[in-house]
Amino acid sequence: MNRRFHGELATLKADLLRMGDLAQSMVELAVRALVDRDTALLGQVRAAEEEMNKLHLALDERCFTLLALQQPTAGDLRFLLGAVKSVGDLERIGDQSVSIAKSAEQLIQEPPLKPLIDIPKMAELARGMVHDSLGSLVSGDYGLARTVLLADDAVDSLRDEVFRELLTHMTNDPDTVARALQLILISRSLERIADHATNIAEDVIFITTAADVRHHAMDGFAESEDD
Amino acid sequence: MNRRFHGELATLKADLLRMGDLAQSMVELAVRALVDRDTALLGQVRAAEEEMNKLHLALDERCFTLLALQQPTAGDLRFLLGAVKSVGDLERIGDQSVSIAKSAEQLIQEPPLKPLIDIPKMAELARGMVHDSLGSLVSGDYGLARTVLLADDAVDSLRDEVFRELLTHMTNDPDTVARALQLILISRSLERIADHATNIAEDVIFITTAADVRHHAMDGFAESEDD
Repeated sequence: MNRRFHGELATLKADLLRMGDLAQSMVELAVRALVDRDTALLGQVRAAEEEMNKLHLALDERCFTLLALQQPTAGDLRFLLGAVKSVGDLERIGDQSVSIAKSAEQLIQEPPLKPLIDIPKMAELARGMVHDSLGSLVSGDYGLARTVLLADDAVDSLRDEVFRELLTHMTNDPDTVARALQLILISRSLERIADHATNIAEDVIFITTAADVRHHAMDGFAESEDD
Repeated sequence: MNRRFHGELATLKADLLRMGDLAQSMVELAVRALVDRDTALLGQVRAAEEEMNKLHLALDERCFTLLALQQPTAGDLRFLLGAVKSVGDLERIGDQSVSIAKSAEQLIQEPPLKPLIDIPKMAELARGMVHDSLGSLVSGDYGLARTVLLADDAVDSLRDEVFRELLTHMTNDPDTVARALQLILISRSLERIADHATNIAEDVIFITTAADVRHHAMDGFAESEDD
Protein backbone atom coordinates (compact mmCIF):
# COMPACT_ATOMS: atom_id res chain seq x y z
CA MET A 1 0.00 0.00 0.00
CA ASN A 2 2.75 2.40 0.98
CA ARG A 3 4.72 1.65 -2.16
CA ARG A 4 1.58 2.01 -4.23
CA PHE A 5 0.80 5.34 -2.54
CA HIS A 6 4.27 6.60 -3.33
CA GLY A 7 3.84 5.47 -6.92
CA GLU A 8 0.60 7.42 -7.10
CA LEU A 9 2.25 10.49 -5.60
CA ALA A 10 4.96 10.25 -8.28
CA THR A 11 2.31 10.05 -11.01
CA LEU A 12 0.50 13.02 -9.50
CA LYS A 13 3.72 15.02 -9.51
CA ALA A 14 4.34 14.14 -13.16
CA ASP A 15 0.80 15.24 -14.02
CA LEU A 16 1.23 18.49 -12.09
CA LEU A 17 4.32 19.20 -14.18
CA ARG A 18 2.34 18.40 -17.33
CA MET A 19 -0.39 20.81 -16.25
CA GLY A 20 2.33 23.39 -15.54
CA ASP A 21 3.77 22.88 -19.05
CA LEU A 22 0.32 23.39 -20.52
CA ALA A 23 -0.15 26.62 -18.53
CA GLN A 24 3.25 27.86 -19.70
CA SER A 25 2.50 27.11 -23.33
CA MET A 26 -0.85 28.94 -23.06
CA VAL A 27 0.89 32.10 -21.81
CA GLU A 28 3.50 31.79 -24.52
CA LEU A 29 1.00 31.16 -27.34
CA ALA A 30 -1.27 34.05 -26.33
CA VAL A 31 1.58 36.56 -26.22
CA ARG A 32 3.21 35.19 -29.38
CA ALA A 33 -0.13 35.56 -31.18
CA LEU A 34 -0.08 39.22 -30.16
CA VAL A 35 3.55 39.91 -31.04
CA ASP A 36 3.55 37.97 -34.34
CA ARG A 37 -0.03 39.08 -35.14
CA ASP A 38 -0.82 35.42 -35.81
CA THR A 39 -4.50 34.57 -35.31
CA ALA A 40 -3.87 30.84 -35.89
CA LEU A 41 -2.20 30.66 -32.47
CA LEU A 42 -5.37 31.94 -30.79
CA GLY A 43 -7.20 28.73 -31.67
CA GLN A 44 -4.42 26.79 -29.97
CA VAL A 45 -4.99 28.75 -26.76
CA ARG A 46 -8.69 27.86 -26.80
CA ALA A 47 -7.91 24.18 -27.44
CA ALA A 48 -5.41 24.21 -24.56
CA GLU A 49 -8.05 25.69 -22.26
CA GLU A 50 -10.31 22.68 -22.75
CA GLU A 51 -7.42 20.35 -21.96
CA MET A 52 -6.62 22.50 -18.91
CA ASN A 53 -10.17 22.29 -17.57
CA LYS A 54 -10.12 18.51 -17.93
CA LEU A 55 -6.80 18.24 -16.11
CA HIS A 56 -8.12 20.54 -13.37
CA LEU A 57 -11.10 18.29 -12.63
CA ALA A 58 -9.09 15.08 -12.98
CA LEU A 59 -6.24 16.14 -10.68
CA ASP A 60 -8.62 17.67 -8.15
CA GLU A 61 -10.40 14.34 -7.97
CA ARG A 62 -7.11 12.42 -7.82
CA CYS A 63 -5.94 14.46 -4.81
CA PHE A 64 -9.29 13.84 -3.14
CA THR A 65 -9.02 10.08 -3.70
CA LEU A 66 -5.47 9.96 -2.35
CA LEU A 67 -6.58 11.87 0.74
CA ALA A 68 -9.69 9.72 1.20
CA LEU A 69 -8.19 6.28 0.69
CA GLN A 70 -4.74 6.77 2.20
CA GLN A 71 -3.86 8.30 5.51
CA PRO A 72 -1.02 10.48 4.35
CA THR A 73 1.68 11.55 6.79
CA ALA A 74 1.80 15.20 7.76
CA GLY A 75 4.34 15.97 5.02
CA ASP A 76 2.40 14.16 2.29
CA LEU A 77 -0.84 15.73 3.52
CA ARG A 78 0.63 19.22 3.22
CA PHE A 79 1.92 18.37 -0.23
CA LEU A 80 -1.52 17.12 -1.30
CA LEU A 81 -3.21 20.27 0.01
CA GLY A 82 -0.59 22.33 -1.83
CA ALA A 83 -1.33 20.27 -4.96
CA VAL A 84 -5.09 20.93 -4.69
CA LYS A 85 -4.46 24.67 -4.41
CA SER A 86 -1.86 24.71 -7.18
CA VAL A 87 -4.20 22.92 -9.57
CA GLY A 88 -6.67 25.78 -8.99
CA ASP A 89 -3.95 28.36 -9.63
CA LEU A 90 -2.89 26.63 -12.86
CA GLU A 91 -6.45 26.58 -14.11
CA ARG A 92 -6.70 30.32 -13.46
CA ILE A 93 -3.42 30.90 -15.30
CA GLY A 94 -5.17 29.23 -18.23
CA ASP A 95 -8.14 31.62 -17.81
CA GLN A 96 -5.82 34.64 -17.84
CA SER A 97 -4.12 33.34 -20.98
CA VAL A 98 -7.53 33.15 -22.63
CA SER A 99 -8.17 36.79 -21.59
CA ILE A 100 -4.86 37.76 -23.19
CA ALA A 101 -5.83 35.88 -26.35
CA LYS A 102 -9.14 37.78 -26.50
CA SER A 103 -7.38 41.14 -26.22
CA ALA A 104 -4.81 39.98 -28.79
CA GLU A 105 -7.61 39.07 -31.18
CA GLN A 106 -8.90 42.65 -31.08
CA LEU A 107 -5.44 44.21 -31.31
CA ILE A 108 -4.44 42.14 -34.34
CA GLN A 109 -7.32 43.69 -36.29
CA GLU A 110 -5.81 47.17 -35.96
CA PRO A 111 -2.43 48.67 -36.85
CA PRO A 112 0.20 48.11 -34.15
CA LEU A 113 0.37 50.91 -31.58
CA LYS A 114 4.08 50.49 -30.87
CA PRO A 115 6.75 47.79 -30.89
CA LEU A 116 6.07 45.48 -27.97
CA ILE A 117 9.04 45.07 -25.67
CA ASP A 118 7.94 45.05 -22.03
CA ILE A 119 4.91 42.81 -22.51
CA PRO A 120 6.95 39.93 -24.03
CA LYS A 121 9.46 40.46 -21.19
CA MET A 122 6.67 40.20 -18.61
CA ALA A 123 5.34 37.09 -20.35
CA GLU A 124 8.76 35.43 -20.31
CA LEU A 125 9.23 36.24 -16.61
CA ALA A 126 5.75 35.00 -15.73
CA ARG A 127 6.23 31.81 -17.75
CA GLY A 128 9.52 31.15 -15.95
CA MET A 129 7.80 31.72 -12.60
CA VAL A 130 5.14 29.15 -13.46
CA HIS A 131 7.91 26.72 -14.44
CA ASP A 132 9.88 27.28 -11.23
CA SER A 133 6.88 27.28 -8.90
CA LEU A 134 5.79 23.88 -10.20
CA GLY A 135 9.38 22.62 -10.03
CA SER A 136 9.61 23.73 -6.42
CA LEU A 137 6.26 22.10 -5.60
CA VAL A 138 7.12 18.65 -6.91
CA SER A 139 10.67 18.67 -5.52
CA GLY A 140 9.88 20.52 -2.26
CA ASP A 141 12.66 22.97 -3.15
CA TYR A 142 12.41 25.91 -0.74
CA GLY A 143 15.21 27.85 -2.44
CA LEU A 144 13.59 27.63 -5.87
CA ALA A 145 10.29 28.79 -4.36
CA ARG A 146 12.08 31.85 -2.93
CA THR A 147 13.39 32.83 -6.39
CA VAL A 148 9.79 32.88 -7.66
CA LEU A 149 8.88 35.50 -5.04
CA LEU A 150 11.81 37.65 -6.13
CA ALA A 151 10.85 37.45 -9.81
CA ASP A 152 7.39 38.75 -8.90
CA ASP A 153 8.88 42.15 -8.02
CA ALA A 154 10.39 42.41 -11.51
CA VAL A 155 7.00 41.65 -13.06
CA ASP A 156 5.36 44.35 -10.95
CA SER A 157 7.91 47.00 -12.04
CA LEU A 158 7.36 46.09 -15.69
CA ARG A 159 3.61 46.39 -15.15
CA ASP A 160 4.11 49.91 -13.76
CA GLU A 161 6.37 50.83 -16.68
CA VAL A 162 3.84 49.56 -19.22
CA PHE A 163 1.12 51.51 -17.44
CA ARG A 164 3.03 54.80 -17.40
CA GLU A 165 4.07 54.53 -21.03
CA LEU A 166 0.61 53.67 -22.32
CA LEU A 167 -1.02 56.36 -20.18
CA THR A 168 1.17 58.90 -22.01
CA HIS A 169 0.13 57.52 -25.40
CA MET A 170 -3.54 57.68 -24.44
CA THR A 171 -3.32 61.22 -23.13
CA ASN A 172 -1.42 62.50 -26.18
CA ASP A 173 -3.38 60.74 -28.88
CA PRO A 174 -7.04 59.74 -28.47
CA ASP A 175 -6.70 57.34 -31.41
CA THR A 176 -4.52 55.10 -29.27
CA VAL A 177 -6.95 54.81 -26.35
CA ALA A 178 -8.73 51.57 -27.26
CA ARG A 179 -5.52 49.75 -28.21
CA ALA A 180 -3.52 51.03 -25.25
CA LEU A 181 -6.30 49.93 -22.93
CA GLN A 182 -6.16 46.38 -24.29
CA LEU A 183 -2.39 46.35 -23.79
CA ILE A 184 -2.84 47.51 -20.19
CA LEU A 185 -5.36 44.73 -19.60
CA ILE A 186 -2.88 42.23 -21.07
CA SER A 187 -0.17 43.46 -18.71
CA ARG A 188 -2.61 43.04 -15.79
CA SER A 189 -3.33 39.47 -16.89
CA LEU A 190 0.40 38.75 -16.97
CA GLU A 191 0.70 40.25 -13.50
CA ARG A 192 -2.06 37.89 -12.31
CA ILE A 193 -0.31 34.91 -13.88
CA ALA A 194 2.81 35.85 -11.96
CA ASP A 195 0.66 36.20 -8.82
CA HIS A 196 -0.68 32.67 -9.27
CA ALA A 197 2.88 31.35 -9.61
CA THR A 198 3.71 33.30 -6.45
CA ASN A 199 0.77 31.69 -4.65
CA ILE A 200 2.09 28.25 -5.59
CA ALA A 201 5.58 29.19 -4.40
CA GLU A 202 4.18 30.56 -1.12
CA ASP A 203 2.40 27.27 -0.57
CA VAL A 204 5.70 25.45 -1.14
CA ILE A 205 7.39 27.67 1.43
CA PHE A 206 4.53 26.96 3.82
CA ILE A 207 4.77 23.21 3.14
CA THR A 208 8.55 23.02 3.53
CA THR A 209 8.74 25.35 6.53
CA ALA A 210 5.86 23.72 8.38
CA ALA A 211 7.35 20.29 7.69
CA ASP A 212 10.58 21.53 9.23
CA VAL A 213 8.86 22.90 12.31
CA ARG A 214 6.93 19.68 12.73
CA HIS A 215 10.10 17.71 12.11
CA HIS A 216 11.93 19.48 14.95
CA ALA A 217 8.94 19.07 17.23
CA MET A 218 9.23 15.34 16.64
CA ASP A 219 12.83 15.18 17.88
CA GLY A 220 14.43 14.98 14.49
CA PHE A 221 12.83 11.92 13.02
CA ALA A 222 11.97 12.86 9.46
CA GLU A 223 8.83 11.09 8.44
CA SER A 224 9.02 11.76 4.75
CA GLU A 225 12.24 13.37 3.65
CA ASP A 226 11.28 13.59 0.02
CA ASP A 227 8.41 16.00 0.28
CA MET B 1 -13.96 12.10 19.23
CA ASN B 2 -16.70 12.23 16.65
CA ARG B 3 -18.70 14.72 18.67
CA ARG B 4 -15.58 16.80 19.21
CA PHE B 5 -14.83 16.68 15.49
CA HIS B 6 -18.33 17.90 14.70
CA GLY B 7 -17.90 20.67 17.24
CA GLU B 8 -14.69 21.70 15.52
CA LEU B 9 -16.35 21.63 12.12
CA ALA B 10 -19.07 23.91 13.49
CA THR B 11 -16.44 26.33 14.81
CA LEU B 12 -14.64 26.24 11.46
CA LYS B 13 -17.90 27.07 9.67
CA ALA B 14 -18.52 30.00 12.03
CA ASP B 15 -15.00 31.27 11.36
CA LEU B 16 -15.44 30.91 7.61
CA LEU B 17 -18.56 33.07 7.87
CA ARG B 18 -16.60 35.60 9.93
CA MET B 19 -13.89 35.68 7.26
CA GLY B 20 -16.62 36.10 4.64
CA ASP B 21 -18.09 39.04 6.59
CA LEU B 22 -14.65 40.64 6.73
CA ALA B 23 -14.21 40.20 2.97
CA GLN B 24 -17.63 41.75 2.36
CA SER B 25 -16.89 44.71 4.57
CA MET B 26 -13.56 45.29 2.78
CA VAL B 27 -15.31 45.49 -0.60
CA GLU B 28 -17.95 47.78 0.86
CA LEU B 29 -15.46 50.09 2.60
CA ALA B 30 -13.21 50.42 -0.45
CA VAL B 31 -16.09 51.36 -2.76
CA ARG B 32 -17.74 53.62 -0.17
CA ALA B 33 -14.41 55.44 0.25
CA LEU B 34 -14.48 56.06 -3.51
CA VAL B 35 -18.12 57.12 -3.74
CA ASP B 36 -18.13 59.29 -0.59
CA ARG B 37 -14.55 60.50 -1.26
CA ASP B 38 -13.75 59.57 2.31
CA THR B 39 -10.05 58.79 2.85
CA ALA B 40 -10.65 57.74 6.48
CA LEU B 41 -12.29 54.56 5.20
CA LEU B 42 -9.12 53.60 3.31
CA GLY B 43 -7.28 53.05 6.59
CA GLN B 44 -10.02 50.66 7.65
CA VAL B 45 -9.45 48.60 4.49
CA ARG B 46 -5.76 48.29 5.31
CA ALA B 47 -6.49 47.30 8.92
CA ALA B 48 -8.97 44.69 7.70
CA GLU B 49 -6.33 43.26 5.34
CA GLU B 50 -4.04 42.45 8.27
CA GLU B 51 -6.89 40.70 10.05
CA MET B 52 -7.70 38.86 6.81
CA ASN B 53 -4.13 37.59 6.42
CA LYS B 54 -4.15 36.32 10.00
CA LEU B 55 -7.45 34.52 9.50
CA HIS B 56 -6.14 33.02 6.24
CA LEU B 57 -3.14 31.44 7.94
CA ALA B 58 -5.11 30.36 11.01
CA LEU B 59 -7.96 28.71 9.09
CA ASP B 60 -5.57 27.09 6.61
CA GLU B 61 -3.76 25.53 9.54
CA ARG B 62 -7.02 24.55 11.24
CA CYS B 63 -8.20 22.68 8.13
CA PHE B 64 -4.83 20.93 7.96
CA THR B 65 -5.07 19.85 11.61
CA LEU B 66 -8.61 18.53 11.17
CA LEU B 67 -7.50 16.55 8.12
CA ALA B 68 -4.37 15.27 9.83
CA LEU B 69 -5.83 14.26 13.18
CA GLN B 70 -9.26 13.05 12.13
CA GLN B 71 -10.14 10.70 9.34
CA PRO B 72 -13.00 12.66 7.88
CA THR B 73 -15.69 10.85 5.91
CA ALA B 74 -15.88 11.52 2.18
CA GLY B 75 -18.43 14.32 2.68
CA ASP B 76 -16.47 16.04 5.45
CA LEU B 77 -13.25 15.63 3.47
CA ARG B 78 -14.78 17.37 0.46
CA PHE B 79 -16.07 20.13 2.70
CA LEU B 80 -12.62 20.60 4.27
CA LEU B 81 -10.95 20.75 0.83
CA GLY B 82 -13.61 23.27 -0.22
CA ALA B 83 -12.87 25.24 2.95
CA VAL B 84 -9.11 25.32 2.22
CA LYS B 85 -9.77 26.64 -1.28
CA SER B 86 -12.39 29.13 -0.12
CA VAL B 87 -10.05 30.55 2.49
CA GLY B 88 -7.61 31.27 -0.35
CA ASP B 89 -10.36 32.92 -2.40
CA LEU B 90 -11.41 35.10 0.54
CA GLU B 91 -7.87 36.27 1.10
CA ARG B 92 -7.65 37.26 -2.57
CA ILE B 93 -10.96 39.13 -2.29
CA GLY B 94 -9.21 41.09 0.44
CA ASP B 95 -6.27 41.76 -1.91
CA GLN B 96 -8.61 43.03 -4.62
CA SER B 97 -10.32 45.31 -2.10
CA VAL B 98 -6.92 46.76 -1.26
CA SER B 99 -6.31 47.37 -4.99
CA ILE B 100 -9.65 49.19 -5.18
CA ALA B 101 -8.68 51.27 -2.13
CA LYS B 102 -5.38 52.24 -3.81
CA SER B 103 -7.17 53.39 -6.96
CA ALA B 104 -9.75 55.21 -4.82
CA GLU B 105 -6.95 57.01 -2.99
CA GLN B 106 -5.71 58.46 -6.28
CA LEU B 107 -9.18 59.29 -7.57
CA ILE B 108 -10.19 61.14 -4.42
CA GLN B 109 -7.35 63.61 -5.00
CA GLU B 110 -8.88 64.77 -8.28
CA PRO B 111 -12.28 66.15 -9.25
CA PRO B 112 -14.88 63.46 -9.87
CA LEU B 113 -15.07 62.32 -13.50
CA LYS B 114 -18.76 61.45 -13.40
CA PRO B 115 -21.41 60.31 -10.94
CA LEU B 116 -20.68 56.69 -10.08
CA ILE B 117 -23.63 54.40 -10.66
CA ASP B 118 -22.52 51.11 -12.20
CA ILE B 119 -19.47 50.62 -9.97
CA PRO B 120 -21.49 50.76 -6.72
CA LYS B 121 -23.98 48.38 -8.38
CA MET B 122 -21.17 45.97 -9.26
CA ALA B 123 -19.82 46.23 -5.71
CA GLU B 124 -23.21 45.45 -4.21
CA LEU B 125 -23.67 42.45 -6.50
CA ALA B 126 -20.16 41.16 -5.77
CA ARG B 127 -20.64 41.63 -2.03
CA GLY B 128 -23.91 39.70 -2.17
CA MET B 129 -22.17 36.93 -4.11
CA VAL B 130 -19.48 36.64 -1.42
CA HIS B 131 -22.24 36.46 1.19
CA ASP B 132 -24.18 33.77 -0.65
CA SER B 133 -21.17 31.69 -1.67
CA LEU B 134 -20.07 31.44 1.97
CA GLY B 135 -23.62 30.72 3.06
CA SER B 136 -23.85 27.90 0.51
CA LEU B 137 -20.48 26.51 1.62
CA VAL B 138 -21.32 26.22 5.31
CA SER B 139 -24.85 24.94 4.72
CA GLY B 140 -24.06 22.79 1.66
CA ASP B 141 -26.88 24.59 -0.16
CA TYR B 142 -26.64 23.66 -3.85
CA GLY B 143 -29.47 26.00 -4.87
CA LEU B 144 -27.86 29.02 -3.22
CA ALA B 145 -24.56 28.18 -4.93
CA ARG B 146 -26.38 28.17 -8.29
CA THR B 147 -27.72 31.71 -7.71
CA VAL B 148 -24.13 32.92 -7.24
CA LEU B 149 -23.23 31.66 -10.73
CA LEU B 150 -26.20 33.53 -12.21
CA ALA B 151 -25.25 36.79 -10.47
CA ASP B 152 -21.80 36.55 -12.05
CA ASP B 153 -23.30 37.18 -15.50
CA ALA B 154 -24.86 40.43 -14.24
CA VAL B 155 -21.47 41.55 -12.92
CA ASP B 156 -19.84 40.80 -16.27
CA SER B 157 -22.41 42.88 -18.18
CA LEU B 158 -21.90 45.81 -15.82
CA ARG B 159 -18.12 45.48 -16.34
CA ASP B 160 -18.66 45.73 -20.12
CA GLU B 161 -20.96 48.73 -19.69
CA VAL B 162 -18.43 50.52 -17.47
CA PHE B 163 -15.72 49.75 -20.02
CA ARG B 164 -17.64 51.11 -23.01
CA GLU B 165 -18.72 54.26 -21.23
CA LEU B 166 -15.26 55.10 -19.92
CA LEU B 167 -13.64 54.33 -23.27
CA THR B 168 -15.87 57.03 -24.78
CA HIS B 169 -14.84 59.53 -22.10
CA MET B 170 -11.16 58.77 -22.68
CA THR B 171 -11.41 59.09 -26.44
CA ASN B 172 -13.35 62.36 -26.29
CA ASP B 173 -11.37 64.07 -23.55
CA PRO B 174 -7.70 63.33 -22.85
CA ASP B 175 -8.05 64.97 -19.42
CA THR B 176 -10.19 62.07 -18.29
CA VAL B 177 -7.74 59.31 -19.28
CA ALA B 178 -5.94 58.78 -15.98
CA ARG B 179 -9.13 58.83 -13.91
CA ALA B 180 -11.13 56.69 -16.33
CA LEU B 181 -8.30 54.14 -16.31
CA GLN B 182 -8.44 53.85 -12.52
CA LEU B 183 -12.20 53.36 -12.68
CA ILE B 184 -11.74 50.60 -15.27
CA LEU B 185 -9.19 48.91 -13.01
CA ILE B 186 -11.65 49.15 -10.11
CA SER B 187 -14.36 47.51 -12.21
CA ARG B 188 -11.90 44.72 -13.08
CA SER B 189 -11.15 44.19 -9.38
CA LEU B 190 -14.87 43.93 -8.67
CA GLU B 191 -15.16 41.43 -11.50
CA ARG B 192 -12.37 39.37 -9.88
CA ILE B 193 -14.09 39.51 -6.51
CA ALA B 194 -17.22 38.15 -8.17
CA ASP B 195 -15.04 35.47 -9.82
CA HIS B 196 -13.67 34.39 -6.44
CA ALA B 197 -17.21 34.10 -5.07
CA THR B 198 -18.05 32.07 -8.18
CA ASN B 199 -15.08 29.78 -7.48
CA ILE B 200 -16.37 29.17 -3.98
CA ALA B 201 -19.87 28.45 -5.31
CA GLU B 202 -18.45 26.08 -7.94
CA ASP B 203 -16.64 24.20 -5.21
CA VAL B 204 -19.91 23.91 -3.31
CA ILE B 205 -21.61 22.51 -6.40
CA PHE B 206 -18.74 20.07 -6.79
CA ILE B 207 -18.95 19.09 -3.10
CA THR B 208 -22.71 18.63 -3.05
CA THR B 209 -22.92 16.90 -6.43
CA ALA B 210 -20.03 14.55 -5.74
CA ALA B 211 -21.50 13.78 -2.32
CA ASP B 212 -24.76 12.90 -4.06
CA VAL B 213 -23.05 10.66 -6.59
CA ARG B 214 -21.09 8.97 -3.84
CA HIS B 215 -24.24 8.74 -1.78
CA HIS B 216 -26.09 6.87 -4.54
CA ALA B 217 -23.11 4.62 -5.10
CA MET B 218 -23.40 3.66 -1.43
CA ASP B 219 -26.99 2.50 -1.84
CA GLY B 220 -28.61 5.48 -0.25
CA PHE B 221 -27.00 5.58 3.17
CA ALA B 222 -26.12 9.20 3.82
CA GLU B 223 -23.00 9.36 5.90
CA SER B 224 -23.15 13.02 6.82
CA GLU B 225 -26.34 14.73 5.77
CA ASP B 226 -25.36 18.08 7.11
CA ASP B 227 -22.43 18.80 4.88
